[in-house]
Amino acid sequence: MQLNNQEISKKNIFSKTEEELQYKIADKVMQLFFPSIHEPELAENMDLQIANIVYDFLNASNANTNIDLNSLIQKFSDSQVPIEPSSFESYFKYLTNNIITHSIHTSSPRFIGHMTSALPYFVQPLAKLMTAMNQNAVKIETAKALSFYERQALSMMHRQIYSFSDNFYAQHIQNNQSTLGILVSGGTIANITALWCARNTSLGPKNGFGGIEKEGLALALNFYGYKGAVVIGSELMHFSFDKAVDLMGIGTQGLIKIPVDSNNRVNIQVLRQAVAKCRNQNLHIIAIIGVAGTTDSGSVDPLLEIAEIAHENNVHFHVDAAWGGPIIFSKKYRHKLAGIKQADSVTIDGHKQLYLPMGIGMVFFRDPHLASSIEKEASYTMRKGSFDLGKRALEGSRPGMSLFLHAGLNLIGLKGYEFLIDESIRKTQYMATRISAMSEFELLVKPDTNLLTYRYIPEPLREVVAKKQLTKTDNLLITQLNENLQKMQRQIGRTFISRTTKTITSFDEKISVVALRAVIANPLTTEEDIDAVLNDQIQIGSEISMLSFFAN
Amino acid sequence: MQLNNQEISKKNIFSKTEEELQYKIADKVMQLFFPSIHEPELAENMDLQIANIVYDFLNASNANTNIDLNSLIQKFSDSQVPIEPSSFESYFKYLTNNIITHSIHTSSPRFIGHMTSALPYFVQPLAKLMTAMNQNAVKIETAKALSFYERQALSMMHRQIYSFSDNFYAQHIQNNQSTLGILVSGGTIANITALWCARNTSLGPKNGFGGIEKEGLALALNFYGYKGAVVIGSELMHFSFDKAVDLMGIGTQGLIKIPVDSNNRVNIQVLRQAVAKCRNQNLHIIAIIGVAGTTDSGSVDPLLEIAEIAHENNVHFHVDAAWGGPIIFSKKYRHKLAGIKQADSVTIDGHKQLYLPMGIGMVFFRDPHLASSIEKEASYTMRKGSFDLGKRALEGSRPGMSLFLHAGLNLIGLKGYEFLIDESIRKTQYMATRISAMSEFELLVKPDTNLLTYRYIPEPLREVVAKKQLTKTDNLLITQLNENLQKMQRQIGRTFISRTTKTITSFDEKISVVALRAVIANPLTTEEDIDAVLNDQIQIGSEISMLSFFAN
Repeated sequence: MQLNNQEISKKNIFSKTEEELQYKIADKVMQLFFPSIHEPELAENMDLQIANIVYDFLNASNANTNIDLNSLIQKFSDSQVPIEPSSFESYFKYLTNNIITHSIHTSSPRFIGHMTSALPYFVQPLAKLMTAMNQNAVKIETAKALSFYERQALSMMHRQIYSFSDNFYAQHIQNNQSTLGILVSGGTIANITALWCARNTSLGPKNGFGGIEKEGLALALNFYGYKGAVVIGSELMHFSFDKAVDLMGIGTQGLIKIPVDSNNRVNIQVLRQAVAKCRNQNLHIIAIIGVAGTTDSGSVDPLLEIAEIAHENNVHFHVDAAWGGPIIFSKKYRHKLAGIKQADSVTIDGHKQLYLPMGIGMVFFRDPHLASSIEKEASYTMRKGSFDLGKRALEGSRPGMSLFLHAGLNLIGLKGYEFLIDESIRKTQYMATRISAMSEFELLVKPDTNLLTYRYIPEPLREVVAKKQLTKTDNLLITQLNENLQKMQRQIGRTFISRTTKTITSFDEKISVVALRAVIANPLTTEEDIDAVLNDQIQIGSEISMLSFFAN
Repeated sequence: MQLNNQEISKKNIFSKTEEELQYKIADKVMQLFFPSIHEPELAENMDLQIANIVYDFLNASNANTNIDLNSLIQKFSDSQVPIEPSSFESYFKYLTNNIITHSIHTSSPRFIGHMTSALPYFVQPLAKLMTAMNQNAVKIETAKALSFYERQALSMMHRQIYSFSDNFYAQHIQNNQSTLGILVSGGTIANITALWCARNTSLGPKNGFGGIEKEGLALALNFYGYKGAVVIGSELMHFSFDKAVDLMGIGTQGLIKIPVDSNNRVNIQVLRQAVAKCRNQNLHIIAIIGVAGTTDSGSVDPLLEIAEIAHENNVHFHVDAAWGGPIIFSKKYRHKLAGIKQADSVTIDGHKQLYLPMGIGMVFFRDPHLASSIEKEASYTMRKGSFDLGKRALEGSRPGMSLFLHAGLNLIGLKGYEFLIDESIRKTQYMATRISAMSEFELLVKPDTNLLTYRYIPEPLREVVAKKQLTKTDNLLITQLNENLQKMQRQIGRTFISRTTKTITSFDEKISVVALRAVIANPLTTEEDIDAVLNDQIQIGSEISMLSFFAN
């Protein structure tokens, strides 16, 4: 009996404690959701701490810390979720010491190896605004003004590419039957969306056949009398096209990769032959791709000539201008994109040369009704005739990223973007000139825009390079050295350059070599920074060469 | 001569002016990129202005303004990009007056019609941090610590779903051959990724056949001896599955939709028959889908029974828990998700019931090697054996959204999320009880979780509803009234509820009716807010009823 009573009383104590804990947690969580009412200083403290963290991060000059990956693995090996809410002070401290410190300083003027750079300051307060507003761009009911604002921002970019008439834009800009462009999470989804529209339009409903959207690829090929389907473009096409043909059921062997010339531009003659061959083999060409700014080397395909081939063969012409699109802002260089106006669809990334945050891909259409071929509806939303942006899109719920696009176009303006593009190309030419003048390096290709591929040459081989007499063995040695150099430079973290592989001709034989790859797009990068990066490589290169010498 | 001289001098003046303009623009643009050096107050002013805008926006109590769509169309009809950079003061003013004022107050406690709600405050400073850090999660070279941190955050969620052993997580959490989950832009990409993995694995390379990834769908079906491919799930599946089967070349007729029972759960018997029929017809079943929280009504399919059918037939079992996934945090309600542990893949959205910003979709895999079937590489990055997260992902470049996920799990914690889920379901039950008690409304389905479908009943029909004797004509009238009510409520903007269509049985006949749809997930919503929303509807409903009365 006594025991029983004791147990009852114990139970009461426990349940009371449990209740108190619940209450404490409820209180903490509600504070998180509305700190301005529950605890006004909480929000201010968070803002202040993050502002300080951001300031320190952006003012660091090195590219990254030299922590090795195994140490990072140790730091992030626990998969337990904390039971109770952690305090933001302790969590922000953890963030700073473990993640932020060991993140890449993509804004560093000496981090010039990838397509990620410093951003204009205004994206920071706008990120706060976008997140606080929490609009869902998928439908009018969760993004009222933003839906029209996004259409406007996309039309502004469309106009830069296609320069159609005032009348055209007046007719389509806010017409819910028209789609001038779709805002997506990135260039990959943009490219996939373009091919999806091209495929569904070219294999659409006809004479009782329901179309590929409804009946699928196998029946569509069968109905239209094709043996298979392909996509054709340069061997330097972005790897999103490999994903696209896989995902779409075409298969990666249906992605026909045409060799490039010594300037990394697609070989037009081979392209023309490949198109003819596909037609002879009764293969349906879903699209021909032109690349405006290859990821590998910034080269721009001869778009006018590709457009002609596509037009002659009545094939969809897609231009992947994820990187190079904003060159249209430059009076001096926009001639490089001649032919882009003929494209049926164009991909441009906002988070590349529009200097906007990650997560802004765009696809534009010449024909405002092309995207009708992918339209979908749902009973709870996306109703026919509505302005819901999610009706014609691969993605569903998505953030109001158009805030950044619209703000960028207004706060930087046409001439601001022109300045940024011109400066990047000017500095790339400076770097190319420096490299060509230094015996420590070999420029592999004259840069077309603002990417540059080159390699370090060890002392004993510099004269051989000058005489263009490198053997295959020499090249192998140089390749190993450059791969090690890039890895060591990255590990030390003072400066950063990426690497890629290039095909070169050595004594009439094509061989694959490792190249250093510079991407000059950070507005903060000066000529001094470029020199510093090259000097860092010379120092590391000579140290490695010495080591290999002693090792031999 | 003189003229000529004059012209030369004019040209000089012009080119000087042009040069000055260029200089002015260069200066403005550089200030935007580094205001803390060029003009320290610029950054502070931007931050302050945005903070004020955000404060006003979040403290508005109505759901939205009553501006009509045509007025918005007028506001956003210009497609010109400004030539020179605009000042941020004028642009922010424009933003406030045109976009922000007319945006949806998704955080309003009386906006309870969609899956978008108030967010915890910490996401605002974190958005600033993420944007400032500008990591690109696609590869180690642009996201060093973040790559491991993201894997950790995904493993934490994986563990909540699957609860495998410590040993399992120690082995896979930071193993670059393993993929416990992929962070994507949303539930749609998550569902597509899951089906992509399922398809590529089940139709993979075998006996000289290169696999569907390489050879495409038509050859794969042919090699494996299938007549076609299908995906099977409830008729309430999210419309991302329609997109998936279209995109993947299966065709929307290959998406087999099984009717639901009166509780909106898939009819297991019909599902079993459909699976058997497909097998008899020699159709390859790529996946069977279970829905944990239908978008339409929050219902959860009987996952254990679906798992059994999938297991018996050796078919991939995917659970779309984009909405309902976080119910696993609730001791009281997690039994509803029983069977989710058997899923081969699971979709969960961070921007739904994890209360994180838009753009956080996740797909989790039971088998850490399933995603190898979609692996892709590129020469300039994504190298084999690397920790580059982009190797096994549909998307390429993407932001460091794992910051929000990791922070949410830590700052809210298991018990914090449990509180949020339990509270939402409690308030939904309150609303259901209120609706059932009021003759002005009819509850259409007893809520399974925290979505609720009901309708307004006009005065003259209330007794007929009580007697369950509504005719088809009555239902048609009620449907028209509810559609108008929802539109008017939305237009007035004091409160918000969405609408959907439901199938009900009237005198043994199945008819489609419009239902009002409440989503109770905003932690700021109180019982008083729910009453206010219902009272708003009663007021609008009676006004419309009067109008129709006079119109007749």
